Amino acid sequence: MVTVAVDAGGADLGPGEVAAGAARAAAGGVRVLLFGPAREIGPVPAGVELIDAPVSIAKQADPAHAVRTTPEASIVQATRAVADGRAQAFVSGGSTGPALAAALFNLRRDRGVYRPALALPLPIPGGSPVLLLDVGANAVCRPEHLVQFAHMGSAFAQAVIGIPTPRVALLSNGEEPGKGTPDVVGVHEQLAGARGAGLNFIGNIEGTQIVGGVADVVVMDGFTGNVTLKLIEGVSSRALRVLTEMADTTPRGRLANRLIAPTMRRLGEEIDPEGPGGAYMLGLRQLGVVAHGRFSARGFARAIEVAARGVQQDVIGRTRLALRDAGALRSPRLGAGADDELDSSSAPTATVSAP
Amino acid sequence: MVTVAVDAGGADLGPGEVAAGAARAAAGGVRVLLFGPAREIGPVPAGVELIDAPVSIAKQADPAHAVRTTPEASIVQATRAVADGRAQAFVSGGSTGPALAAALFNLRRDRGVYRPALALPLPIPGGSPVLLLDVGANAVCRPEHLVQFAHMGSAFAQAVIGIPTPRVALLSNGEEPGKGTPDVVGVHEQLAGARGAGLNFIGNIEGTQIVGGVADVVVMDGFTGNVTLKLIEGVSSRALRVLTEMADTTPRGRLANRLIAPTMRRLGEEIDPEGPGGAYMLGLRQLGVVAHGRFSARGFARAIEVAARGVQQDVIGRTRLALRDAGALRSPRLGAGADDELDSSSAPTATVSAP
Repeated sequence: MVTVAVDAGGADLGPGEVAAGAARAAAGGVRVLLFGPAREIGPVPAGVELIDAPVSIAKQADPAHAVRTTPEASIVQATRAVADGRAQAFVSGGSTGPALAAALFNLRRDRGVYRPALALPLPIPGGSPVLLLDVGANAVCRPEHLVQFAHMGSAFAQAVIGIPTPRVALLSNGEEPGKGTPDVVGVHEQLAGARGAGLNFIGNIEGTQIVGGVADVVVMDGFTGNVTLKLIEGVSSRALRVLTEMADTTPRGRLANRLIAPTMRRLGEEIDPEGPGGAYMLGLRQLGVVAHGRFSARGFARAIEVAARGVQQDVIGRTRLALRDAGALRSPRLGAGADDELDSSSAPTATVSAP
Repeated sequence: MVTVAVDAGGADLGPGEVAAGAARAAAGGVRVLLFGPAREIGPVPAGVELIDAPVSIAKQADPAHAVRTTPEASIVQATRAVADGRAQAFVSGGSTGPALAAALFNLRRDRGVYRPALALPLPIPGGSPVLLLDVGANAVCRPEHLVQFAHMGSAFAQAVIGIPTPRVALLSNGEEPGKGTPDVVGVHEQLAGARGAGLNFIGNIEGTQIVGGVADVVVMDGFTGNVTLKLIEGVSSRALRVLTEMADTTPRGRLANRLIAPTMRRLGEEIDPEGPGGAYMLGLRQLGVVAHGRFSARGFARAIEVAARGVQQDVIGRTRLALRDAGALRSPRLGAGADDELDSSSAPTATVSAP
């Protein structure tokens, strides 16, 4: 049985909502170590062990500093539980910055990995999900980061989504190899060169094509990834809402609204941000899942289940292997241990980014 | 009467489609100088003067080089007509790169402007349009460019959209002033400091909020702007299409589809990419409008009308004044003439970007 360490701090609806999600996940067969304020959470069911951790650093402006100086914080304790072997994965419902900083500090980057990335399997109604990464761990990415993300995403899509040869695309402002910032153009060249090394790189895609079913994995920097994810959420919900509002102004439209309501609900479920359970933190020595602070109990339960399944599917081991096979690991030129250090520059640029 | 110089090269449906658009605009009272292949276009109606220009550089990989070495190209001739005073604005239906390179070469940047930007008034159903800039002229932007774009966009929203005090926002991956890349954080600081100088800067917004009616002007770099625009197009059309397809699987849903069809058409018209007529090229000494290569005659007519109206509304003069009043002009530290030079670095990063 997989044990997942869960940080109850930082959820918009309060730690009780995370606890309710933990209870659901426990009922489904996952063991949960829950770190949060015991006084607020109250009794927990069998399968959930509550560790009193009333301090949350989810809203701290300087996550790296907060992690270093607040060992008792719920997210720090949750990631330490994974580092100590008491759990095999962690789930954070708080903001991404502290989760990333705590994970780098306690779990450390996997050997040869430049930067962890947040990977989100975006549900596509009537199609298979498309994996977007990075959706917010690194606002600024160097070309070698994006190249690694492509391999990490490809390995993930194979292991978790079950696609034998994932189509990997690079997001740019034009399909031609020369389109994009100089960094993006450089990444394109490197990915095109990696086609022999097991990467099914299909080239650049434009914004229109992200939801068009042409790629299984789309690589982008964390700033663009955050904007992309939030724009998809905002535009799809607004388009459907405006249609309903416009129809609602005529008797014929009102009837149409009543008749189409079940379909609208079904579509809403398919594009539900809680569906994927959050974004996977890839590139660490162990697995983390970053849920969205706005999630309800259902979403947190899903995040915990997704983390447990990721452990069973050995997401970390398979990503590591894919990076090694592709020759996409960072050379240890910085000396032993240097790549495991907490890179404080990453934390301030990290942002809330799960769906 | 305003005269608009129109480049018929580069339209996906061929120069005839642009000519048909020119004919419509002429019927509406705009004088058009049309540069394109006379043999393909054939006779033109009164109000349109056809200048035979069979060479198009719309598909050239190196636009700056193409502009310098192909003075007979249709877009080069069209921008030269504006420089010579034979027309007051130009419209390009080809790709953005050559249009931008030709405009920089012949029309030159306005004094004190770092880089021209493409500004698109995005229609928001049930609301007033939101002006996005830069939507693709500059894949890489320095902070001072983005600061100028904010002032340029604000002036444009006042002059053309008619908003007395436009709400100007900066797109980032979080609302807090410290969120974003280091460049974005720096731009935020400068814009916050410009609040006294007539800029109604409301702070950062996230992707979700672009279509949420909270801002009248949203500032972003051209790479993000291109992705944003194309994503909005792709996601809104896909959401509505999937709804229809899902409904179509049941008798009740099929009836709903029939009943809601008029509303769907009306919504489609409101989010029609041809509606705005294209993106305005701001920051030059004269006005340009970049239509989308995929436009039909109706879209090109709209682009020409929009360019003519921009001249009547003195978009360029009002933008210039706003930049001066805000103290947002570049200091002439590079020596006379240096800022008018064709910056060849801009052209390769420019991409098709209109809706």
